[in-house]
Amino acid sequence: MRRALQLAGNGPAAGVNPRVGCVILSPAGELLAEGWHRGAGTCHAEVDALAQLDPAAARGATAVVTLEPCNHTGRTGPCALALIDAGISRVVYAVADPGRHSSGGGDRLRAAGVDVTGGLLADEVEVFLADWLVSARLGRPFVTVKWASSLDGRAAAADGSSQWITGPAARHDVHLRRAAADAIVVGTGTVLADDPSLTARADDGTLLPHQPQPVVAGDRPVPADAAVHRHPLAPWFVAGHDPNALLRELHERGIRRVFVEGGPTLASAFVRAGLADEYLVYLAPTLLGGEKLALGDIGVGSITGQRRLAIDDLVRLGDDILLIARPASSQTPTTDHTAPALSVTEK
Amino acid sequence: MRRALQLAGNGPAAGVNPRVGCVILSPAGELLAEGWHRGAGTCHAEVDALAQLDPAAARGATAVVTLEPCNHTGRTGPCALALIDAGISRVVYAVADPGRHSSGGGDRLRAAGVDVTGGLLADEVEVFLADWLVSARLGRPFVTVKWASSLDGRAAAADGSSQWITGPAARHDVHLRRAAADAIVVGTGTVLADDPSLTARADDGTLLPHQPQPVVAGDRPVPADAAVHRHPLAPWFVAGHDPNALLRELHERGIRRVFVEGGPTLASAFVRAGLADEYLVYLAPTLLGGEKLALGDIGVGSITGQRRLAIDDLVRLGDDILLIARPASSQTPTTDHTAPALSVTEK
Ligand SMILES: NC(=O)c1ccc[n+]([C@@H]2O[C@H](COP(=O)([O-])OP(=O)(O)OC[C@H]3O[C@@H](n4cnc5c(N)ncnc54)[C@H](OP(=O)(O)O)[C@@H]3O)[C@@H](O)[C@H]2O)c1
Ligand SMILES: NC(=O)c1ccc[n+]([C@@H]2O[C@H](COP(=O)([O-])OP(=O)(O)OC[C@H]3O[C@@H](n4cnc5c(N)ncnc54)[C@H](OP(=O)(O)O)[C@@H]3O)[C@@H](O)[C@H]2O)c1
Repeated sequence: MRRALQLAGNGPAAGVNPRVGCVILSPAGELLAEGWHRGAGTCHAEVDALAQLDPAAARGATAVVTLEPCNHTGRTGPCALALIDAGISRVVYAVADPGRHSSGGGDRLRAAGVDVTGGLLADEVEVFLADWLVSARLGRPFVTVKWASSLDGRAAAADGSSQWITGPAARHDVHLRRAAADAIVVGTGTVLADDPSLTARADDGTLLPHQPQPVVAGDRPVPADAAVHRHPLAPWFVAGHDPNALLRELHERGIRRVFVEGGPTLASAFVRAGLADEYLVYLAPTLLGGEKLALGDIGVGSITGQRRLAIDDLVRLGDDILLIARPASSQTPTTDHTAPALSVTEK
Repeated sequence: MRRALQLAGNGPAAGVNPRVGCVILSPAGELLAEGWHRGAGTCHAEVDALAQLDPAAARGATAVVTLEPCNHTGRTGPCALALIDAGISRVVYAVADPGRHSSGGGDRLRAAGVDVTGGLLADEVEVFLADWLVSARLGRPFVTVKWASSLDGRAAAADGSSQWITGPAARHDVHLRRAAADAIVVGTGTVLADDPSLTARADDGTLLPHQPQPVVAGDRPVPADAAVHRHPLAPWFVAGHDPNALLRELHERGIRRVFVEGGPTLASAFVRAGLADEYLVYLAPTLLGGEKLALGDIGVGSITGQRRLAIDDLVRLGDDILLIARPASSQTPTTDHTAPALSVTEK
């Protein structure tokens, strides 16, 4: 399964289809074939792997695949059927297919007498497929909420000055992660206060190859000469204060990964609504005090209502610390995996 | 020098005298003798080491010592003189003696023709001697300011509930560190809100062998049935709102290590006054929002006035993270060492 997950990583990251990998093993456990999904319109991982083999070679073999084989006839036929036809006698998968039209592959295989086991390495595959799973299960994009703060949780000093709380290594990291998102969302408050360009840039200021779609949320008008208008992609302005509606809108426009970069009001609204699938908290070793909090009202009244997180990673970025976390419980239904052991990565 | 520092560690931690170690090396670099200071009234490290040798054996030898040899005649004679009399030809020390009566040993040695070098491993020895150095240089105790907060910097939920933000491993760690302090200080606000016992306890609730002196700062009276009255040491109540005066008072009563455990008002007053030599920030992977901040007004108006810290250690305690830090610059004159490389310790 670990090899299948590696193979899945060969697929295109920014696709509408999930990245899936498949390994076919002989009854003796020898590797017969490998395959992965190369993007919409191409064959699925299972079919890709079977295609490496003579028609009879898969008879009695085991298929190990990261996602439950689909039961859906789209541009390609159902993978469950392809496996049955090839004479596969055992299927092991990690994560069940949550798709409305594509699920049921496991049952179909079982009905055909195939030995089917789900759940192997499910935690790791859940993390790997997190954005696609959120989209498939909840019909909205995967949401990363990012903020930078002092150790005492401030996003700016009392007078609003905040350049710079974090150092160059942390800012560089933010730009790389922006470039991995489909859209970057800020509130009008941040645009009016900071006039950010919302581009993903290299250290020398040049634009990175992939630019996220800039999105400004809120009712107030943004000046015609705001820097965001010079973004290579024309910004989208989404009125209203309903983060669910905002995400629906973005999902309909094909956005699968959203990077919420603040400010505090918008970030708090996403946290309050239970819409943060991933947290990136950049902590600078500094104290600021005062009223300019990185997070405001998140709707927690008492300690019993606290929003527990599971820390996936702690990364040192120069003097700063990046905490990567996700909701610890079923607060958001993205995943119920337990967090992997905490590691600290030096960058 | 590293060996001398190890030897220094043999001395008693809770003493009025510094813990010092000394190694005597032959001109060829062979180890001739080792010594350390065993506490007030006993001989200093240099004399302890020389005592291992025949009177003539130290002639031409090198003494490596963690603190500049003293120039002071107290219960023992000046170490500088003892080294000169023994015929030592070279002295290497780490940190200069800041004592009003004891400094000048290096000059005295030089005047006698001894080759003297200071500063070797000074950073490490500064950290090791931090509490004694603060006392010797500033005439006040070494101050550790501790707080526990959510990732967004809250010490409690909106309704004041805070049990528990951090987990058992973090609370266990706090008790061990309490036991290493001479006094634990809280404001009246914490006593009135939480009725803490201010004892250092093991996991099973039993008292640890060393108990810090409980100190309550502030003007409001504390109820006669407050838990702090059941502390094995009768609590000290110190009126007023001047942390400098409070520390002077404690120093006069022989306190050398103070553990400021809050609450937010008292902790902020210490930070504001530049009186935090060490920070212990226990961060729980949770979000609380709301107004109950772990740190309030610390007197920073603008980003240029931020209080930068140097992180000495990041420790995982169960789900929580302990950040051990100290002022990064000369904001407090405790030490000007650069922080050692960040390491993460598992507990
Ligand atoms: N440290 C950091 O990571 C970081 C990041 C970004 C910004 N900042 C700082 O944050 C400050 C700006 O703070 P801010 O809170 O005003 O910025 P903000 O969150 O960007 O903007 C708040 C505005 O967003 C709109 N909005 C959209 N959806 C909303 C919702 N669901 N709930 C409430 N409002 C919603 C509202 O605008 P309308 O009134 O127009 O409808 C609201 O006034 C600046 O000083 C900036 O420097 C810090
Ligand atoms: N998360 C944590 O680490 C932590 C730790 C401790 C407490 N807490 C929480 O903190 C809350 C209590 O907060 P708090 O801020 O009221 O507690 P506090 O800091 O313990 O007490 C504040 C009081 O201390 C006195 N004081 C002494 N020196 C002062 C100075 N230099 N400046 C100002 N006041 C000084 C004043 O009392 P007088 O008015 O009597 O003069 C002041 O009202 C509780 O809910 C508790 O649970 C959290």
